[in-house]
Amino acid sequence: MDLKVYREHTKVTRRFKEAELVLKNAKIINVFTNEIITGDIAIEDGMIVGIGNYEGKQEHDMTGKYVCPGFIDSHLHLESTLVTPKELVTVASRHGTTTFIVDPHESANVSGLAGINYILDQTEDASANVFVMMPSCVPATSIDDNGCTLTAEDMTQYLDNERVLGLGEVMDYISVVNADPGMHRKLDLFKDKVRDGHAPFLAEEDLQAYVMAGISTDHECSDFQYAMRERRNGMTVLIREGSAAKNLEAIVKGIVENNIPVEGFCFCTDDKHIEDIEREGHIDYNVRKAIELGMNPVSAIKMATIYPAICYGFHNLGAVAPGYQADLVVLNDLNKISIENVYYKGEVIEQEEEIEIKKCPDELKNTVHVGKFSKNDLQLESPTGYFPVIEMQEGQITTKKQIKKFSRGKCLFLSNAQYQKIAVIERHKSTGKTGVGIVSGFGIQKGAIASSVSHDSHNIIVIGDNDEDMVLAVQELIRTQGGYTIVADHKIFDTLELPVMGLMSDAGYQYNNHKLKNMINKAHEMGVGRGIDPFITLSFMALPVIPEVRITPRGVYDVLGGEFCSY
Amino acid sequence: MDLKVYREHTKVTRRFKEAELVLKNAKIINVFTNEIITGDIAIEDGMIVGIGNYEGKQEHDMTGKYVCPGFIDSHLHLESTLVTPKELVTVASRHGTTTFIVDPHESANVSGLAGINYILDQTEDASANVFVMMPSCVPATSIDDNGCTLTAEDMTQYLDNERVLGLGEVMDYISVVNADPGMHRKLDLFKDKVRDGHAPFLAEEDLQAYVMAGISTDHECSDFQYAMRERRNGMTVLIREGSAAKNLEAIVKGIVENNIPVEGFCFCTDDKHIEDIEREGHIDYNVRKAIELGMNPVSAIKMATIYPAICYGFHNLGAVAPGYQADLVVLNDLNKISIENVYYKGEVIEQEEEIEIKKCPDELKNTVHVGKFSKNDLQLESPTGYFPVIEMQEGQITTKKQIKKFSRGKCLFLSNAQYQKIAVIERHKSTGKTGVGIVSGFGIQKGAIASSVSHDSHNIIVIGDNDEDMVLAVQELIRTQGGYTIVADHKIFDTLELPVMGLMSDAGYQYNNHKLKNMINKAHEMGVGRGIDPFITLSFMALPVIPEVRITPRGVYDVLGGEFCSY
Repeated sequence: MDLKVYREHTKVTRRFKEAELVLKNAKIINVFTNEIITGDIAIEDGMIVGIGNYEGKQEHDMTGKYVCPGFIDSHLHLESTLVTPKELVTVASRHGTTTFIVDPHESANVSGLAGINYILDQTEDASANVFVMMPSCVPATSIDDNGCTLTAEDMTQYLDNERVLGLGEVMDYISVVNADPGMHRKLDLFKDKVRDGHAPFLAEEDLQAYVMAGISTDHECSDFQYAMRERRNGMTVLIREGSAAKNLEAIVKGIVENNIPVEGFCFCTDDKHIEDIEREGHIDYNVRKAIELGMNPVSAIKMATIYPAICYGFHNLGAVAPGYQADLVVLNDLNKISIENVYYKGEVIEQEEEIEIKKCPDELKNTVHVGKFSKNDLQLESPTGYFPVIEMQEGQITTKKQIKKFSRGKCLFLSNAQYQKIAVIERHKSTGKTGVGIVSGFGIQKGAIASSVSHDSHNIIVIGDNDEDMVLAVQELIRTQGGYTIVADHKIFDTLELPVMGLMSDAGYQYNNHKLKNMINKAHEMGVGRGIDPFITLSFMALPVIPEVRITPRGVYDVLGGEFCSY
Repeated sequence: MDLKVYREHTKVTRRFKEAELVLKNAKIINVFTNEIITGDIAIEDGMIVGIGNYEGKQEHDMTGKYVCPGFIDSHLHLESTLVTPKELVTVASRHGTTTFIVDPHESANVSGLAGINYILDQTEDASANVFVMMPSCVPATSIDDNGCTLTAEDMTQYLDNERVLGLGEVMDYISVVNADPGMHRKLDLFKDKVRDGHAPFLAEEDLQAYVMAGISTDHECSDFQYAMRERRNGMTVLIREGSAAKNLEAIVKGIVENNIPVEGFCFCTDDKHIEDIEREGHIDYNVRKAIELGMNPVSAIKMATIYPAICYGFHNLGAVAPGYQADLVVLNDLNKISIENVYYKGEVIEQEEEIEIKKCPDELKNTVHVGKFSKNDLQLESPTGYFPVIEMQEGQITTKKQIKKFSRGKCLFLSNAQYQKIAVIERHKSTGKTGVGIVSGFGIQKGAIASSVSHDSHNIIVIGDNDEDMVLAVQELIRTQGGYTIVADHKIFDTLELPVMGLMSDAGYQYNNHKLKNMINKAHEMGVGRGIDPFITLSFMALPVIPEVRITPRGVYDVLGGEFCSY
């Protein structure tokens, strides 16, 4: 700290000077001792400079209210909710999350370092602390066709950036345990920082080998037994509760029932949509739910504050104590985590203020570059009449692989009510690659749906019951340079434009929500099952690390077999 | 980690290769989950590479035995036990302490950076991990006459030394809270590392200001209430149990009775003599005593392992888990902490092997440089007949200040049975400074005792009932270039030579112990109270930060008044 600042701050601490702001008579949650102690919090320049008995130029009466540290989301992606980064951060900060540890790997897959810089720049002046983990797996796999490749060398320039905490979720565990030099160069680069994991249900030996590479966290853990396996190996478990993946109940129940120490457990959202945040909250929701499941409120709060602070090396975040940033949540009720107010750097976060949408640099618009593409590219032929089918399942993003016989001998597949076409068109480098497959279980009739959000490479993915509408949908997304679109009866029904890297809209989240709701309704009317989110489910159909079978620009990929399907 | 090493280690982890060594069927203390789980520990190149079910080229049967991580002494001085650093480390490592966090401030006060390098070099190949904190207060105060001054600039070269963890105990809290630029340059230099505190009973506002400077630990805490005050401010409390200062019972009782979370508490010895270590143990003694006071054994072990590891940023020490160094303690009994064996980097520490005494560089010998000194320098005169008296108290290193009238008007003080002379002779820079005072409560008759160990500046301190013997004692220490000596009846009774910086002997600790025991007996026979350790108590009489009054080369210093006494 600057010495002059220290001198001025400690004048307040030592009562030689009145504080700028004092929160009077608060029931303060002490995350170090688990005590709740009534006292005043003196704040100067956004820092807590004294706890005890203080007078201030400005005083906020906290009588009867609890004050705990601002919450920390220990792992999330900002892009997944379609709004610009600052919008999401602002909405979540109103629910008490004042620190976000962000992995910008969606942006990086489209625009590389420029995408990462976009996330950093957009959130620089947000009403929260936004940190970045450098995406470790861009592209996600060697068979991906994405926009950019990030190597250890590319990341070196970020080592001294104080907002970059380490290496983002290392999804490619095979490269890790097989000692792949490229992967280990990245791990080595961040050896003095945090290296986040992504390790769903590894075999015990692989998990131990993974940990030995220096990876210290995981947010993919979805049951208590596996959480304990990770904890035994010293990993910090980031308990996830987002829009789709909900792991909190299973893990917290186990912790409570087995009286497991909560040190080494944190909370995260991973992917939580803005409408869900508005409805039920953000990390405050995780805390509340943990308390409902029987966890002591102070323990639950520690998992949202001091434990992630320790895990990520924050020395001035995660506690209400002198020298800590004045990021505070004021609660009317400790058990219900009912939030009265949130302070970020000693200032109340306005709940109603209009959220600024920051301009996106031109280079991050117009990122949809499709090579030759026409109806012919959607033709699907088998010399034997047998075709692999991607069987979608309601409520899941996993799929089943089936082999179906559509005719005797050589055959050109034609869509019908049950079996439809799904295609991915490479959109970063105009390579002209288009992969086509057959899908069941989606149900769309007389139309097509397309999206430029398709994990993790974010090519254009399209699904439909006829080739003409599929082509129209793709052409629409080329025209809008990214988005979600629905074609019904050979006409564009509506398009949600996502011009920022083809991933985000800069039109404001209320506008988006309204439009999206309409489009989702239309999709269901067109036959898409009610248990399927037409766009989100579709966006996962190209991710070649989730079993059993996926569609990529290179064709249908058998994830379990680790090879492309032949006909 | 080197990729080739990782590849080889994980071959064992993944069972593609047999381990070098396996500890079979151990009851393993898991410091992450608080579980005790039976299993095998696979070890390769001194690292734990797998926990579970393993075969090894060599196997040690652990059936029925507990295995916990090697203990960490979170704060100690190696010099205080008079032996060379490696001897102390080796003896303590046999009692399970495999990591030492050392503040070499005694050496630094005599020989500056050369003294620190001596500690680093001597312990480099010890059977333990020895880390150093850079001494922050050399000299301890501005009125000290020591051998060297350490500034932030001097320390810069150690920033990249992996064995230097941060800044050592910041004793001068006044400089901290008053924003002294020299002190804050040191604090700032180590802002990304650990900054150890030394903060006995600060007023709450001062404690908070002290913490705000980034100081995060304290080992001077001696009661539970103060420990809680420090914990509330986020400090890690290093619970001290050494030869002289014993704070464990008071603090641990409070923790147990009030059910306080033990995270943020560690153990240390600060100063523990080798004969005490041999008799009762080292950090294992702290753990044992905590269990006897009602603490859960796993919690007590965590305070000696994973919590100091977290505090000091060790990622591969303090746990029995894959990727951790194989520093292990084998226990026959968990509640009694009865140690069967200790492993350091996967090798059993031999209990009986002779300990190597490493050669000391010549520049660290012959450090006693006294200017003019004769009997005349011990003359003590008052124009008024009033003299300040340093009243020593059995069992304490604190003193009381008294003003005594020895005559009417001008008077030359002469020693007697009750009131004796104490003097400190500057011995680093031949300045010729000698300070003389009167002491009561020591009790020596017909002789003198002198020491070149006198905190923190380590000048020659001498006490006696007649000037001739005092002069003889000082001359003896000039001759031996450091040591403890007793003069009886105008003859040298015996001298324990401490040629290494005047602080340590390189003659071997058994030889020292034998000689020291004899000398201590002799001192008691000569009248020194049984409750006084003649040398250790004497060595604190020159430390001008402990109340109420001290003797320095510049005269008698009133610590509470912050000024030298006039006559």
